[in-house]
Amino acid sequence: MASWLQIPKNSPFSLANIPFGIISSSKISSRVPAVAVGDYALNLSAFAASGGFSQLPAIQSHLNVFTQPTLNAFAALGRPVHRQVREYIQKVFSSETPFPQVLKDNASLQQEALLPLSEVTNHLPMQIGDYTDFYAGLNHAYNIGVLFRGPDNALQPNYTHLPVAYHGRASSVVTSGTPLHRPQGQILTNPAATPKVPTFSPCKKLDIELEMAFFVSTPNDLGHPVHIDNAEDHIFGVVLMNDWSARDIQAWEYVPLGPFNAKNFGTTITPWVVLIDALEPFRASGLEPGNRESLLPYLREKRAENAYDIPLEVEVTNAGGKATVISHSNAKNLLYSFPQMLAHHTITGCNLNTGDLLGSGTISGKDKQTEGSFLEQTNGKTPIKLADGSERFFLEDGDTVVLRGMAGTEGNYVGFGDCTGTILPPVKLNL
Amino acid sequence: MASWLQIPKNSPFSLANIPFGIISSSKISSRVPAVAVGDYALNLSAFAASGGFSQLPAIQSHLNVFTQPTLNAFAALGRPVHRQVREYIQKVFSSETPFPQVLKDNASLQQEALLPLSEVTNHLPMQIGDYTDFYAGLNHAYNIGVLFRGPDNALQPNYTHLPVAYHGRASSVVTSGTPLHRPQGQILTNPAATPKVPTFSPCKKLDIELEMAFFVSTPNDLGHPVHIDNAEDHIFGVVLMNDWSARDIQAWEYVPLGPFNAKNFGTTITPWVVLIDALEPFRASGLEPGNRESLLPYLREKRAENAYDIPLEVEVTNAGGKATVISHSNAKNLLYSFPQMLAHHTITGCNLNTGDLLGSGTISGKDKQTEGSFLEQTNGKTPIKLADGSERFFLEDGDTVVLRGMAGTEGNYVGFGDCTGTILPPVKLNL
Repeated sequence: MASWLQIPKNSPFSLANIPFGIISSSKISSRVPAVAVGDYALNLSAFAASGGFSQLPAIQSHLNVFTQPTLNAFAALGRPVHRQVREYIQKVFSSETPFPQVLKDNASLQQEALLPLSEVTNHLPMQIGDYTDFYAGLNHAYNIGVLFRGPDNALQPNYTHLPVAYHGRASSVVTSGTPLHRPQGQILTNPAATPKVPTFSPCKKLDIELEMAFFVSTPNDLGHPVHIDNAEDHIFGVVLMNDWSARDIQAWEYVPLGPFNAKNFGTTITPWVVLIDALEPFRASGLEPGNRESLLPYLREKRAENAYDIPLEVEVTNAGGKATVISHSNAKNLLYSFPQMLAHHTITGCNLNTGDLLGSGTISGKDKQTEGSFLEQTNGKTPIKLADGSERFFLEDGDTVVLRGMAGTEGNYVGFGDCTGTILPPVKLNL
Repeated sequence: MASWLQIPKNSPFSLANIPFGIISSSKISSRVPAVAVGDYALNLSAFAASGGFSQLPAIQSHLNVFTQPTLNAFAALGRPVHRQVREYIQKVFSSETPFPQVLKDNASLQQEALLPLSEVTNHLPMQIGDYTDFYAGLNHAYNIGVLFRGPDNALQPNYTHLPVAYHGRASSVVTSGTPLHRPQGQILTNPAATPKVPTFSPCKKLDIELEMAFFVSTPNDLGHPVHIDNAEDHIFGVVLMNDWSARDIQAWEYVPLGPFNAKNFGTTITPWVVLIDALEPFRASGLEPGNRESLLPYLREKRAENAYDIPLEVEVTNAGGKATVISHSNAKNLLYSFPQMLAHHTITGCNLNTGDLLGSGTISGKDKQTEGSFLEQTNGKTPIKLADGSERFFLEDGDTVVLRGMAGTEGNYVGFGDCTGTILPPVKLNL
């Protein structure tokens, strides 16, 4: 797909993508919906107000969704509308656009609505009602299980029958670029001592988790599960997610009800939502077929291909240091698909709302330096070496972590952009 | 406190209470804030519009909070304002009211704004951003621990050092009176078999949990914990809560990340929020002092009395049967206070927002028939006998559960009203 707009060949936001987000800038008085195209954001509020959607009859009665400060109203319109709008915008930017008058030959609208990405601020794309994090990265679950219980009991008996998940904290989901203070809390400095008495301390085992996550578009009613065959139509789009984790706080607090403070201090997502349709060309086999007979019927998909082939990477840069890519993984490393997660989430009757965020769990490969967390890579024993020679078991203050993911080929990449976070020192408390 | 309004002596909504809620009725076109007084709801939107707050200068610039469809805007005004408004309304209804012209002698405003409770519909009082459930009922945690691990390891080592909690599901919190379908999901019919293979089934061990819960008023910023001394000022008010639990689904799914589908199908709360100040006269010692030295400083309160003396009860009525009170407990049966829960929730930097709901955990006494769940009372072995002679290990379709709680003495009760839910048969699925 060629465009009249100059789009760098290595851009994650080629015409094949068209991700949606929420931006502001010195030129715009409020937060507005936008799409990313190459090095630009198209302000959809300005675009719609100037008749940009004039050649798309289906959206005419819904143009108010492009004046909202979140994408919830747009997402709630449902997948057929998202698909039409994306394809329309692709046509608008195409070299062979059938509607050159809309934008290609409209210099004043270009001037008003096409903003360099370097000049816009990204915001949370959705108002998130509830956030859930799954644990569908089988290699990660296995690696962690080995550390805690040994290789013979690494995976719990339920793991291959259902996508294990926990409810997470929605309020502390932030967009890429938001720095986070190192959390403080209770840790068990000497786990072998009796009795076990915790100390209060800044987290000493601050970790990342390389994840993908998806937003819900259309809701389901309380008491009424979503059928697996319809589940994908409830998915708006996908982002990258860093589920920051305080391992020492987690180890002490998590029995018997799961992680709490160890996760609720911050979760970082990319601000551009890649529509589920934009990922369709990259559909691939996951770790096991989505239609395998060992699954209970409510989780069994029609298709075997239940994952996406999206190369992922983790980069760490220490303060004043150089960037080091410490992990190369792939979104294929999941045992359960997004539709399976959604169907399972609703099977007891739980209602999902527009804007709910569902994470995949940590996506680790099987080999060295394909793991999606420090804990798996170092096990507290073998440090990761950074480009400037320094070593890491876990994150230090000043470290910046960037997650990236990009599918496709040069000139036609479908990517997420950077998922970035920097660790600030712990805040000073007056206890 | 005597009133010119006739208030039944056994009403949970005496003048000593003045709880806030959201109502609608055939007379009101939209949802509006209200307070409950005896057998009436005072529509605060109509009251404010007709100058009802004319004798309270402090609220004049905030009267718009009484036209909102949730209490969030009112809650966000902070505790000093809540206190002033409650005391003002007490004065308005007092026999010796200094402002008789406001309501006592204003028949037309009484006609417009005082609605019989039997004619109003209650709605969720707050827009709930995040819902968290603690596990602070020590007797419950011990009883459950004995069932799972035996008496020697009943409590995990962390239990006496921090208020254990998990993030729950906000979307499925419903108000009293909302029926819920029996959830369906994966259960392990034969836990002793190898390999462990689940079946899909309606829940066969549907249970209740008798809890209290509180709403957050003023928020804290991400990264900035709330000091224990200030924590109570972030609490808006308290409700009763039934944390319905599918024990068989829970037993299979909950390792290693905690309960998920077993809890997310519905959580019922009372619709009237009892302000934290209304409970102050009932402050009492909990299970251990809130200022005990074994607590880390961030959890140590100035006062020893870290609970409330509020008698609680659980009533079950089977379809066509009679009501049977199956449990008498008391809110004193908590190891941690609400301020301790709030301080712990934020210690890693987690931000709480106005409207967030934090549950106490199941409140069980130590004796027979003081437990707050069926699981504890029956252990699947000794059934509960209902008034009509039928027996229960867990809930059956058509059963109605009512939680009640009321502090104080006749004529001056501070209560929550009924927390009611009826179990409907499972929905029919086409899998």
